[in-house]
Amino acid sequence: MTPDQTESCLKTALMLADIAGAVIRPLFRAPLHADNKADASPVTVADRGAERVMRAFLEELHPDHGILGEEFGRTNADSPFCWTLDPVDGTRAFITGRPVFGTLIALMYENRPVIGIIDQPVTGERWIGVAGRETLFRPAMWHQDRTPLPAAARPCPSLGDAELSCTSPEMLESAPECFTWATLKQACRRVSWGGDCYAYGLLALGQIDIIAECDMKPWDWAALQPVVEGAGGCMTDWSGKPLDFNGDGTVLAVGNRDLLDKAVTSLKTALH
Amino acid sequence: MTPDQTESCLKTALMLADIAGAVIRPLFRAPLHADNKADASPVTVADRGAERVMRAFLEELHPDHGILGEEFGRTNADSPFCWTLDPVDGTRAFITGRPVFGTLIALMYENRPVIGIIDQPVTGERWIGVAGRETLFRPAMWHQDRTPLPAAARPCPSLGDAELSCTSPEMLESAPECFTWATLKQACRRVSWGGDCYAYGLLALGQIDIIAECDMKPWDWAALQPVVEGAGGCMTDWSGKPLDFNGDGTVLAVGNRDLLDKAVTSLKTALH
Repeated sequence: MTPDQTESCLKTALMLADIAGAVIRPLFRAPLHADNKADASPVTVADRGAERVMRAFLEELHPDHGILGEEFGRTNADSPFCWTLDPVDGTRAFITGRPVFGTLIALMYENRPVIGIIDQPVTGERWIGVAGRETLFRPAMWHQDRTPLPAAARPCPSLGDAELSCTSPEMLESAPECFTWATLKQACRRVSWGGDCYAYGLLALGQIDIIAECDMKPWDWAALQPVVEGAGGCMTDWSGKPLDFNGDGTVLAVGNRDLLDKAVTSLKTALH
Repeated sequence: MTPDQTESCLKTALMLADIAGAVIRPLFRAPLHADNKADASPVTVADRGAERVMRAFLEELHPDHGILGEEFGRTNADSPFCWTLDPVDGTRAFITGRPVFGTLIALMYENRPVIGIIDQPVTGERWIGVAGRETLFRPAMWHQDRTPLPAAARPCPSLGDAELSCTSPEMLESAPECFTWATLKQACRRVSWGGDCYAYGLLALGQIDIIAECDMKPWDWAALQPVVEGAGGCMTDWSGKPLDFNGDGTVLAVGNRDLLDKAVTSLKTALH
């Protein structure tokens, strides 16, 4: 990608976040019917509507680019550019009225995420990640000055000092058998539950040290990686290998690279 | 209590929420040291500071009333009035930067909660419950009109339609053996994790149908009960019995009374 292409696509990504937010915001805490999808995860008109408008805008602006969205699948799979969209990451949080879900927008180039946006359309918080650059964070609407500022994960010397986060115990039921999440939990200082993409944003702000999740699709992690890495953190699978479209669905994020080997070793250590 | 006493104490409760918020707000996402207490739960200067200022104000205004706070214990235990304070309910959410914790302020009269406030000092959301009255909800700061409005839980015909919420799987490890939370979970439509007091506020807004938690102290549930019941819901222990200072720590909240018996029956049904 040329620098001009990156700039132009970053503008597109920010506009996509604005457009999706305009769909989602009025539906927050409105009476909505939530269908269960084939994988038992919920979906509402907010998920479908926000993905539809983002796809429509992309088809107008970049008709030759690929799109991979959670709700409506993949188009232009041959393009080296692939917009990866999760209109409402954390639909359970959304439908129960918690303002800690997010819209995820990533641009992959040759299967590597180069742009990643985490947008919280209710609080107005937005994390902007571009590969090779510092992550920027736009503060919530309760701040007077909302100029985006560099985001930084925090140092954390050991697992025993680490705040661990995970969205739900249910997702861990699908963890590959060679790992034991409970060992990592025991090694960490504390765990908190119910995170979705917002937890990765908090890791990029130095509030959380480790996130270990599984059953994650490319649209779940693609936008997170530039945000986490541009804040000084790092994201791999539970083996410490790069995240990949054809991976096992495990995702490990750490606020600083020193924790990575410790977390990987801990996940591989069986409890019994 | 006379109506005048109720009005006067309601004013005090709202001022306590403002005072605690002024302590907590600037500490949200600030670098804080979190100590682990004897029960392994975290505590920060925000918890201690907010409780200290609330106690100081109460000692000025109502020196003869009792106070029971999470951090600094009980005073004036003989008074029929007991202010029950949890300065930061959801300290894990607070220290990881999630704006879904809350300050809990209750007034118990003869061991029954008559006033309950759930205050979210960052978003500005506030639930105001008074026994025998409709619960009022002050919307978040992202709404232009922030006039408090009546809050109402929603009808939910069966467990199979119900959104269940619980703060963490760890708290369930201390559930009394005669109950099986997993049976209730299987009977409900969906579960979401990481709630603390904010989930009870969402139940009072018709976003969540059932909350079943345990290891709950009086300062965890006293403020929630007037909020939930004034929105049409009901709160008991897992046996369906009234909540009590000397209870077993289990708390069950339902958005409408029809769900209560079904939830109690489900919790009592062993899985095996």
